Amino acid sequence: MSKGYDFTITALGTPRIQSPISLSKEMDDYLANYVSDDDRVIYDIITRRDNNQLSFPTEELLERAGPRELIYFSPSKVNAAVVTCGGLCPGLNDVIRAIVMCLSYRYNVKRITGIQYGYRGFLPQFHIPTIELTPARVEDIHKKGGTILGSSRGFGDCTAEIVDSIEQMNINMLFVIGGDGSQRGAQDIADEAAGRSYKLAVVGIPKTIDNDLSFVQKSFGFDTAVSEAVSAVAGAHVEAKDAINGVGIVKVMGRESGYIATHTALAINDVNYVLIPEVPFDLEGPNGLLTHLEKRLEARKHAVILVAEGAGQKLLEQQAGADASGNKKLGDVGTFLKSKVSEHFKAKDIEVNVKYIDPSYIIRSAPANPADSLYCARLGTNAVHAAMAGKSKILISLVNNHFVHVPIDMAVSKRNCVDPESSLWRDVIDGTGQPALMKN
Amino acid sequence: MSKGYDFTITALGTPRIQSPISLSKEMDDYLANYVSDDDRVIYDIITRRDNNQLSFPTEELLERAGPRELIYFSPSKVNAAVVTCGGLCPGLNDVIRAIVMCLSYRYNVKRITGIQYGYRGFLPQFHIPTIELTPARVEDIHKKGGTILGSSRGFGDCTAEIVDSIEQMNINMLFVIGGDGSQRGAQDIADEAAGRSYKLAVVGIPKTIDNDLSFVQKSFGFDTAVSEAVSAVAGAHVEAKDAINGVGIVKVMGRESGYIATHTALAINDVNYVLIPEVPFDLEGPNGLLTHLEKRLEARKHAVILVAEGAGQKLLEQQAGADASGNKKLGDVGTFLKSKVSEHFKAKDIEVNVKYIDPSYIIRSAPANPADSLYCARLGTNAVHAAMAGKSKILISLVNNHFVHVPIDMAVSKRNCVDPESSLWRDVIDGTGQPALMKN
Amino acid sequence: MSKGYDFTITALGTPRIQSPISLSKEMDDYLANYVSDDDRVIYDIITRRDNNQLSFPTEELLERAGPRELIYFSPSKVNAAVVTCGGLCPGLNDVIRAIVMCLSYRYNVKRITGIQYGYRGFLPQFHIPTIELTPARVEDIHKKGGTILGSSRGFGDCTAEIVDSIEQMNINMLFVIGGDGSQRGAQDIADEAAGRSYKLAVVGIPKTIDNDLSFVQKSFGFDTAVSEAVSAVAGAHVEAKDAINGVGIVKVMGRESGYIATHTALAINDVNYVLIPEVPFDLEGPNGLLTHLEKRLEARKHAVILVAEGAGQKLLEQQAGADASGNKKLGDVGTFLKSKVSEHFKAKDIEVNVKYIDPSYIIRSAPANPADSLYCARLGTNAVHAAMAGKSKILISLVNNHFVHVPIDMAVSKRNCVDPESSLWRDVIDGTGQPALMKN
Amino acid sequence: MSKGYDFTITALGTPRIQSPISLSKEMDDYLANYVSDDDRVIYDIITRRDNNQLSFPTEELLERAGPRELIYFSPSKVNAAVVTCGGLCPGLNDVIRAIVMCLSYRYNVKRITGIQYGYRGFLPQFHIPTIELTPARVEDIHKKGGTILGSSRGFGDCTAEIVDSIEQMNINMLFVIGGDGSQRGAQDIADEAAGRSYKLAVVGIPKTIDNDLSFVQKSFGFDTAVSEAVSAVAGAHVEAKDAINGVGIVKVMGRESGYIATHTALAINDVNYVLIPEVPFDLEGPNGLLTHLEKRLEARKHAVILVAEGAGQKLLEQQAGADASGNKKLGDVGTFLKSKVSEHFKAKDIEVNVKYIDPSYIIRSAPANPADSLYCARLGTNAVHAAMAGKSKILISLVNNHFVHVPIDMAVSKRNCVDPESSLWRDVIDGTGQPALMKN
Repeated sequence: MSKGYDFTITALGTPRIQSPISLSKEMDDYLANYVSDDDRVIYDIITRRDNNQLSFPTEELLERAGPRELIYFSPSKVNAAVVTCGGLCPGLNDVIRAIVMCLSYRYNVKRITGIQYGYRGFLPQFHIPTIELTPARVEDIHKKGGTILGSSRGFGDCTAEIVDSIEQMNINMLFVIGGDGSQRGAQDIADEAAGRSYKLAVVGIPKTIDNDLSFVQKSFGFDTAVSEAVSAVAGAHVEAKDAINGVGIVKVMGRESGYIATHTALAINDVNYVLIPEVPFDLEGPNGLLTHLEKRLEARKHAVILVAEGAGQKLLEQQAGADASGNKKLGDVGTFLKSKVSEHFKAKDIEVNVKYIDPSYIIRSAPANPADSLYCARLGTNAVHAAMAGKSKILISLVNNHFVHVPIDMAVSKRNCVDPESSLWRDVIDGTGQPALMKN
Repeated sequence: MSKGYDFTITALGTPRIQSPISLSKEMDDYLANYVSDDDRVIYDIITRRDNNQLSFPTEELLERAGPRELIYFSPSKVNAAVVTCGGLCPGLNDVIRAIVMCLSYRYNVKRITGIQYGYRGFLPQFHIPTIELTPARVEDIHKKGGTILGSSRGFGDCTAEIVDSIEQMNINMLFVIGGDGSQRGAQDIADEAAGRSYKLAVVGIPKTIDNDLSFVQKSFGFDTAVSEAVSAVAGAHVEAKDAINGVGIVKVMGRESGYIATHTALAINDVNYVLIPEVPFDLEGPNGLLTHLEKRLEARKHAVILVAEGAGQKLLEQQAGADASGNKKLGDVGTFLKSKVSEHFKAKDIEVNVKYIDPSYIIRSAPANPADSLYCARLGTNAVHAAMAGKSKILISLVNNHFVHVPIDMAVSKRNCVDPESSLWRDVIDGTGQPALMKN
Repeated sequence: MSKGYDFTITALGTPRIQSPISLSKEMDDYLANYVSDDDRVIYDIITRRDNNQLSFPTEELLERAGPRELIYFSPSKVNAAVVTCGGLCPGLNDVIRAIVMCLSYRYNVKRITGIQYGYRGFLPQFHIPTIELTPARVEDIHKKGGTILGSSRGFGDCTAEIVDSIEQMNINMLFVIGGDGSQRGAQDIADEAAGRSYKLAVVGIPKTIDNDLSFVQKSFGFDTAVSEAVSAVAGAHVEAKDAINGVGIVKVMGRESGYIATHTALAINDVNYVLIPEVPFDLEGPNGLLTHLEKRLEARKHAVILVAEGAGQKLLEQQAGADASGNKKLGDVGTFLKSKVSEHFKAKDIEVNVKYIDPSYIIRSAPANPADSLYCARLGTNAVHAAMAGKSKILISLVNNHFVHVPIDMAVSKRNCVDPESSLWRDVIDGTGQPALMKN
Repeated sequence: MSKGYDFTITALGTPRIQSPISLSKEMDDYLANYVSDDDRVIYDIITRRDNNQLSFPTEELLERAGPRELIYFSPSKVNAAVVTCGGLCPGLNDVIRAIVMCLSYRYNVKRITGIQYGYRGFLPQFHIPTIELTPARVEDIHKKGGTILGSSRGFGDCTAEIVDSIEQMNINMLFVIGGDGSQRGAQDIADEAAGRSYKLAVVGIPKTIDNDLSFVQKSFGFDTAVSEAVSAVAGAHVEAKDAINGVGIVKVMGRESGYIATHTALAINDVNYVLIPEVPFDLEGPNGLLTHLEKRLEARKHAVILVAEGAGQKLLEQQAGADASGNKKLGDVGTFLKSKVSEHFKAKDIEVNVKYIDPSYIIRSAPANPADSLYCARLGTNAVHAAMAGKSKILISLVNNHFVHVPIDMAVSKRNCVDPESSLWRDVIDGTGQPALMKN
């Protein structure tokens, strides 16, 4: 954090007073709880016993989020825009709602524009209209899944055209709800605007159902995703248990990180094998998955396999190619496993009944559960506080249970993965009873 | 933390090797992720900008939880007992299950006894049988609300009798799942045993649906409680909105802390007034609740009030008395408010339709949601690791997202309350639009 | 049915062709499935073995609902109004939606007015605005509980004023969603209009969460109500089972009919005593409830009592009085039972832990479950078909799984009650194990 | 009914008194509500207006189910067996539970055997153990999906071996919970036993999640299946709406009957095209699905297609073959549609985002909702009453809301299908706005 990142200097220069927001005197007195620009949250908080009186154990201090006493923007001059990018994730509407409500009610901002279908909504060639966002429009949207703005995957570099469009609309505050690709795009937009000396505050709310962004304790929607995945696993377990040598296979999201799979397994306790991208495994051989599965079926007559979509990619002849967002295109490990399991037992003339469930779209489109609703509400509110204070090129994040500002380039610099030596993975191994490593 | 507490010296003396647990060689190599007794988690992690290279900002370092390389107990000698105390809370069965599973599968412990109906199950005069706890017995219990062990509120001091009973049963490891009163009892039991030179590891898992224990980031079951409270508020909102001057009043748990009420309000966004014990309020007068309510009904025709059971106690003629656990007996603020609202508008000849919902038992008896299931599973697992390592008189807690050991006397020394100057309460004020303070 | 009721002659005279609705030719050919005005549904369908070739076993034939080939109203002349009356019930919004959608899309009707807060919305002294109902306005309302129109209980006779208002608004088609009191009001309105020679089609959709209207197989919302009641009983069961001599008491709706209580008991199987208005019971004495309860607690240590709000009214000193709708005012049997149980065991110095749950508002405000959504959609659609065909003073009902028209005066002439000699009550007795009759 | 079927003469001869069941005198008096063997339920209840005094409109009278005053079996001699066959369906455990509870508590039967994994559990070569079924064993099973007995698809004819096994176990009462294939098997078993003069009462509880058995008003589990399908469609709708030209495709069960699809569409109102086996459709051409879809995407930008698994089979090059139960093997219409839609728009260079959801296993493995729980409880109870009275070769069914006995050969003689001229399909066409027929 320390080095190279300077939180308080934003693209807009040092914040200065324009006009204090119109809080009633009474609230002003009672709620004199502004957050200081000097407040920091320690990121790495594991230390050693004898360190307490010695020296500071970390280099990383994150700027604390929250309302500032002095704000950069005069509310009557604000012209805000909100955009949602990438795949669906529970809580998108909650974040949109919170941004609109906080801008409207706390800061009395009147002009808020919804950009439809991701960044594409900025590009004239698509002829996509914008939406006016008002409290009345967003009042109940948090009870629905998806995003009222629509979304789309990325495409080639159009930063200049997007900033053209932003200039034409006189937007001076942009909220980007999206994944790491979209946040990199947000950074490019901010840089392009700065290059043009166009004043634009760009604040991101990181969205990744896989929970794989670093400096983000838990991404919004993740909790709901796990709840929904638990339901699918419950179904697979029933199907497996009630058939002769029933094998339930459930595929969940997780291109490079196995968080949904690990959390789901720990939450429901009905999974026997968790396969994640971080832990390679073999199918064949004395310590391969199929061998272990065969032993288990002999002993217990049924099994449930929970596989993250990015697991076992080396086992698939990896077709080249990438999706529109530039993400690596993954082979479908779910159907691959399904056929490998079937073939294995067919070759040995052992009856198995494989039931395969892919609940991905059901998970992504679910409305946020109450924990995520609350979390999204607070992310959106803090994003507004940050933008009003003139912060830019930052993400709103929760770290060690405190809301913080994280510079975009810092957050997207590396991925958050399940550490195979962490207590999380250890608890999964203990809970499932699966071998620590299924490699020969 | 530092001063006065010594984590590594337990009632049982310094842990030393008896017999390493029988992990397969392979897992041993792969999962060499034991937690060192010297690992600490920083508790207070807010600092100032210029502190990062200077000095350590806190006195509090909490011992990290997790499996130790050296354990105190030989698994074959362990005779563990589990007891659940106090009111119901989502997740009790999940914790019981995790304790039994981890003892059985990871440590190969064979003797685990369930004590029924709280501490009372130890007392011979009640003739309450014990239950043998095995993996088969607990396999599916986490899908049900409540506790398979039953529970009861406390009663007078019976520490000596309880330890007599523990000695007779040869129990050397006691897991207490209960609130602050029960954990104080656990401490007394540990002290009494130590006084008798009877070797007993006592590990608590803190249970408080109100989320009011200090050094506990979020108590288990709290997340589920908020979810259930959200459903009740949704009902109250519909009832209020669809009647002429409809007023929905929902009472939730929270004797001294308004966490359930505040989190619920932020999660559902349909509440107009949140009343919590930490923020006093008046009913009458120009800035009283009833005056504000009247203005709102004029403007919006309906309102929802969410009240924590401990709110507004000064307004009730507080009858003396305490319940069996020694908790202060609270007047019922829900029915009190209901009649006050009705009277106020009747006196002014204004029609109101008051609908009162008390969902307490529905909340308490709910099965844990997936997030709580996962949390409980990990609390129970870490409790077992602690006890096996010979720790005693500690609680397993989550602090800044790390599992830690907290000495019981430290955790029960003060309550965790909603800080009226925190960002949480600020967000509630912003979200509901209620006055920051309803006092004249 | 037969005698005294004449379905095809409505207040509007014999239907005759005005203009056939504009169906595409193609659909016309494919969907030539109009319902004939001569189609009847047999009501009483239990007969004896040797009756099949002899004579008809019933006097009751109900007119079948559905679209008619000839309609009375020219769609462009229709000016429809919708009103919801009385307490909330799951499915109100679904019925409103279906009426609006069918009028708009099938019949191309353009003018549909929502009357707010029940019949009161017709009365000028209340200054309640009306709502324009369009497909866009109602598109998503079925996903919410309650009614977008608001509702209110009845009050004194204002039939003339209501018809004045109807005339002023030029309404010629009125849909009344309400209980028996409201449907009697609908009949009065139709009669008053007929007396003035004002052409008005009045079609009712019977609403009674208690399921107590005759000639209505199952009232809409009932299925959802039972689902919600099941949740409350599940909570009471957990609370009862996990306490020492725990007694869970749940009160559900059912002023004069115990349908919710009986169906709930059969659906969840955790209830030990079902108390309904149709079956009187004693508290004291050798065969009284308290005596049976005491025996059960001795044997099983816990019990769940499910009581319909109208049960045991003779046991309460029945205060005179009636609510605004003219319904008898009932004493609160739930809190009465709660205190009687507590007193009984206190007097005998036996510890009991009584947990009382009143989920009424949670039940009433729930959104319709899918089965009720479907049912409401079809009720609303058939109501529109009936009104377009010029039917009046009828209710849309489901009888023996066929949608039918029931004259209002026939439906409100008697209540539907649980027959203590029916297989339903027999199955409750078998399922709970309670005595067939708890009377001395 | 009339012709060819004789209900009261069972394989066991005319029922006669053995020993009256031991009801308490009191209940005997109070519950003197036995069902007479002469009671009949009219099946076809639609008639014409002028028929009421003329003649009986139907040939079909079904024997009413329920407890008989005289029973055939002496309870102490009963040796009952229960088997579940075919694919999973919500409510299986509820039916098992009700059979065991009614046999145990009402009739005091002590010997009840669970046969595991369908008929296969009878065959010695599979070495599948049986399970003893007691009230304690089944008490809570209705809260779980699936069947505690396990299930399997059928295989070649083993009637003789099965009856051998039944004889060896001295089973004299067999309850078969399964689909039409399994019920035909039950009939064969009864015939084989009769041929050996072995006294065996065979009572079936029809299971078909597709709701396609005739003389069964609604099959158990169907209601739950629709609820679960509604959730999947809700997800597909969100995914479709929030993408550019989003097309959500959901496949649900329905090999030959489109009941789940039609009911789901009416319950959620978010479906634009319902494709069922009963209504053929074209893909290409001016009135084909793809043409209509293209127009809709132009106008509305998104669409949801709900397809029953048996729809459009003619469009798939129908591979020969049949599954183990002898059911026709269906091509997968879901993935077929998915690729056809993608290809169509790709060829036209129009961007579409197709999201395909197959929730089948999630639906099949769900626990019964309260309505199904209640229904299953009553089906099971009536099955016991029938068997105790000596009925055989019958199914327990609900017809026009009355529980009845239907001879197996009558029920399996034809399928129940959605009638394209019925009000159900008409309401689907009206509700979705889809063309009545998508054929050129």
